[in-house]
Amino acid sequence: MSEAFDVVDVITRKRDRGRLDDARIDWVIDAYTRGVVADEQMSALLMAILLNGMAPEEIARWTAAMVASGERLDFSGLGRPTSDKHSTGGVGDKITLPLTPLVAACGVAVPQLSGRGLGHTGGTLDKLESIRGWRAVLSNEEMHAQLADVGGVICAAGAGLAPADRKMYALRDVTGTVESIPLIASSIMSKKIAEGTGSLVLDVKVGTGAFMKTEADARLLAETMVRLGAAAGVRTVAVLTAMSTPLGLTAGNALEVAESLEVLAGGGPPDVVELTLALAREMLEVAGVDADPEKVLADGRAMDAWRRMIAAQGGDVDAPLPVAQHTHQVLAPADGVLIGLDAMAVGIAAWRLGAGRSRKEDPVQAGAGVQMHAKPGAEVVGGQPLFTLHTDTPERFDTALAALEGGYQIAPMGDRPLDQPLIIDRITTA
Amino acid sequence: MSEAFDVVDVITRKRDRGRLDDARIDWVIDAYTRGVVADEQMSALLMAILLNGMAPEEIARWTAAMVASGERLDFSGLGRPTSDKHSTGGVGDKITLPLTPLVAACGVAVPQLSGRGLGHTGGTLDKLESIRGWRAVLSNEEMHAQLADVGGVICAAGAGLAPADRKMYALRDVTGTVESIPLIASSIMSKKIAEGTGSLVLDVKVGTGAFMKTEADARLLAETMVRLGAAAGVRTVAVLTAMSTPLGLTAGNALEVAESLEVLAGGGPPDVVELTLALAREMLEVAGVDADPEKVLADGRAMDAWRRMIAAQGGDVDAPLPVAQHTHQVLAPADGVLIGLDAMAVGIAAWRLGAGRSRKEDPVQAGAGVQMHAKPGAEVVGGQPLFTLHTDTPERFDTALAALEGGYQIAPMGDRPLDQPLIIDRITTA
Repeated sequence: MSEAFDVVDVITRKRDRGRLDDARIDWVIDAYTRGVVADEQMSALLMAILLNGMAPEEIARWTAAMVASGERLDFSGLGRPTSDKHSTGGVGDKITLPLTPLVAACGVAVPQLSGRGLGHTGGTLDKLESIRGWRAVLSNEEMHAQLADVGGVICAAGAGLAPADRKMYALRDVTGTVESIPLIASSIMSKKIAEGTGSLVLDVKVGTGAFMKTEADARLLAETMVRLGAAAGVRTVAVLTAMSTPLGLTAGNALEVAESLEVLAGGGPPDVVELTLALAREMLEVAGVDADPEKVLADGRAMDAWRRMIAAQGGDVDAPLPVAQHTHQVLAPADGVLIGLDAMAVGIAAWRLGAGRSRKEDPVQAGAGVQMHAKPGAEVVGGQPLFTLHTDTPERFDTALAALEGGYQIAPMGDRPLDQPLIIDRITTA
Repeated sequence: MSEAFDVVDVITRKRDRGRLDDARIDWVIDAYTRGVVADEQMSALLMAILLNGMAPEEIARWTAAMVASGERLDFSGLGRPTSDKHSTGGVGDKITLPLTPLVAACGVAVPQLSGRGLGHTGGTLDKLESIRGWRAVLSNEEMHAQLADVGGVICAAGAGLAPADRKMYALRDVTGTVESIPLIASSIMSKKIAEGTGSLVLDVKVGTGAFMKTEADARLLAETMVRLGAAAGVRTVAVLTAMSTPLGLTAGNALEVAESLEVLAGGGPPDVVELTLALAREMLEVAGVDADPEKVLADGRAMDAWRRMIAAQGGDVDAPLPVAQHTHQVLAPADGVLIGLDAMAVGIAAWRLGAGRSRKEDPVQAGAGVQMHAKPGAEVVGGQPLFTLHTDTPERFDTALAALEGGYQIAPMGDRPLDQPLIIDRITTA
C-alpha cells in the first residue's frame, strides 16, 4: 500500500520547527499504530516534539488522532451523567478508592479506568488487587453493566482504547521523551476521551513527590489538558494540589485500601477526606448534578456503593486485607516538631519495600509499604514511632531506610512547618 | 552483564543541553554496536544531538569511539606515505577515478575506500563496476598487497571498519537525523581514520547540487573535519569547491568512466582536469611528496597506474564500456548563451534514467546517465543537442526530462554567466 506521506518528511518538518498539519498528524499516528512508522522513527519525532514543542492546534489534533487509533466507549445510554477523575500521580494518593463510590452514590456514573504503578507512585489497580478475589480486567460489556447497576467501576483500560498511546508511552519510557507537556497532556487526555466520560476532573499534583516539580509546569499541563477536554466535548476542570508531603498516613497497597475504608467509614486522615470531598464536588459540578457528598459520605451510602462495586468485580469485601510478614519501626530521635516529610523519600521507601515495581512485568507485594505515625506539624516525643515499614522481604529494610534518611526533619518544640494549602488552584476554560 | 550507564540518562543529558563526557560517549557507541542500546534509543539521542549540537571535544570523542568500534588498518609498513581523498558528493564528480592512479604514480600510496551512490549523487563503486570483471570487494590483505604493488586501490570499505558508523548511518537515513554537521563530520572522519591513511584531502562541495547548500555550512563542516583529522594524527586539509554546475560533461556510471579515461589520456573537460590536478597537489603536499602531477598525467604514467589498478581487481581495461540501449536528445530551443546548468537537475535526471538508486538494495544501470554537450558560458545554436539522455528503460525519459526542465537557461548572445571559481577556498588547521 502506498502511504500518503513520507515519515522522514514529517520528522524533518518538526525538527526544523515547522508545524505539523492535520493530515500529517493523522497519518503519522495511524501509520505508527499499523507498524509502518518504526519505533526508531517515532522516537526521533518525539524528541523533536519534546525539544521544539507543539502549537495548541497540533496538540489537539495529536490527541484526536490517538483517540481515533482505537475504539471510543459510549455511556450516553446510561440515563445518568458520567464523570471521571484523573490524578497525575503522587505518594499515598488513594483518593480514587473512596471518591469513585462516593460520586457514584451521588447519582453520577463513574467509569474510572486506572493503571498500575511504576516507580515511586502507586497504582490504583495494584491497591485494589490486595482485596481477595477482586479482578481488574473487565470486558466493555461488563463495565457498562456495572456502571448501569452500581454506578461506579474502577478497572483496567482495555487494549482497544487509544492503542497508539499505549505503544507510544512504552517507547517514551525508554527513549528519554517522557518529560514533554504536549506529550503528557495528549497521552492522558486521549485515554480519558476514548473512555467516553462526559466530564472530567484532573488532579494535577505539584511538588517533590509529583511528576511536575513546579507550579508553573503543573499549571501549563493543567491548562493544556483542560483545553484538550473542551475541544473533545468533555467538560473538564483541573485542580492543582500539593504533593510535597504524602497524602494520608499510608503508602502501599493493602495499607492504602485500609485507609480508604476508614474514610468511607467516616474517619480517616483529614487531608485525604478534604481532597476526596473537594474532588467529589468538582465531579458533581462538571457532571451537572446537585448533591451533598459530605452527607453521602457521612450516612454510609458511599460505603454501600463501595461494597457493591468491589463485590461486582469478585472482591470479598469482608475478607481481611493482607498483612506484610515483617515490620520495622523508625523512632523519633528526640522531642520536637515534625516539620518536613518528603513525598519522594516515602514513595521510594514504599517502592523499595515491595509496594511498587521497577519494570512493568514485576509483581508487587500486597502488604508492603510505609505507615506514617506523624505528619508535618505534629509534636513528637523522642523514642515514639515515626514510621512503620512493612515488607515480606526483610532484606529490603536497609535500602528503604536509606531512602527515608534525610526525608524528614524534626525541629525544636515551638517551630512550625510552612503552611501550604492542599488545594493550590482550580483551572477551568476561560 | 551490568552496564556502566543508563541510556535514558545519556539521552536526557543531551536533551537537556548537557555535555556528554568521554565515558558516556564511549559507552553509548559501544553499547549501540553491541545492540544493548536499541535503534529507537539511538535515534532519540541523534535527534537531540542534531538539535542541541555537540562541543568540539564531544565530536572528537564521538569520532574516536566510532573508530574504536571496529578495526583500524595500518599501512605504515608500505614504506611509502599514504594519502586519501574524500568528497562530500556531487553531480558528475568522477575525480576519484583519474586522481587515485595519478597520485599513486607520483609515489604516494592511495587507499581509497569508496561507497555506492544514493539519490542524486553517483557512487564511485557503481561507476567502476561498469568495467567488465572489476570487483569492488577486497580483503584487507588484498588491499594491502595491491597498495604495495600498484600503489593505488579503490574498493569498498570492509564491514570491520567503524561498524558503529555503518549502523548509525543507516539509522540516520530513515529518522531525519542526517543533516547535523557534528554527525556528518564524525561519520566521514571515523571511516577515514579507521582506514589508516596517513594524510587526507577533503573536497567539500558547496552549491545547489551539493549536500551543503551554503558556503558557511560547508566551511563549518570542513573546519570540523580538519580538526578531527588533526586530533587523530591524520594530516588533513580541506578544499571548498563549487557544485552548482555538474563537474565535466557526463553524469552516469560508464559515461563517467569514459570521461575519466579521457582525462588520463591527456584530454577531458577543463574543470575535471583542473580539480584532479588541484587535489593531486594537495594530496602530495599533505603526504610530504614532491612530484609534478601535471607531468605524470601528461606522460602517461597515470594511465599506466590506472590500467594496473583496474586489472589488479579483475577489470578488463580493454573491454568496451557498456552503452545504454536508448538515447534521447534535448535540443537548444534557440540561439544564445547557456548561462545556467543546475547540478541538482542533472543529478536527478541521471538518477531517474537509472544511473542512481532510491534504496540501498536497488541495482543501477551501467550505461544510463546524462551527457552534456555544453557548459555554462558556451554559445549554442538553436536545434543543436544540449543533452543526450541514456537509459535501458525508455519509459524513464519523461521523468528525466521533467527533472531537467528549468534546470538550464539560455540567454541572448552576448550575455555571460556569473563567473564562479571552481576552487573557493582551502582550509587547514590554524
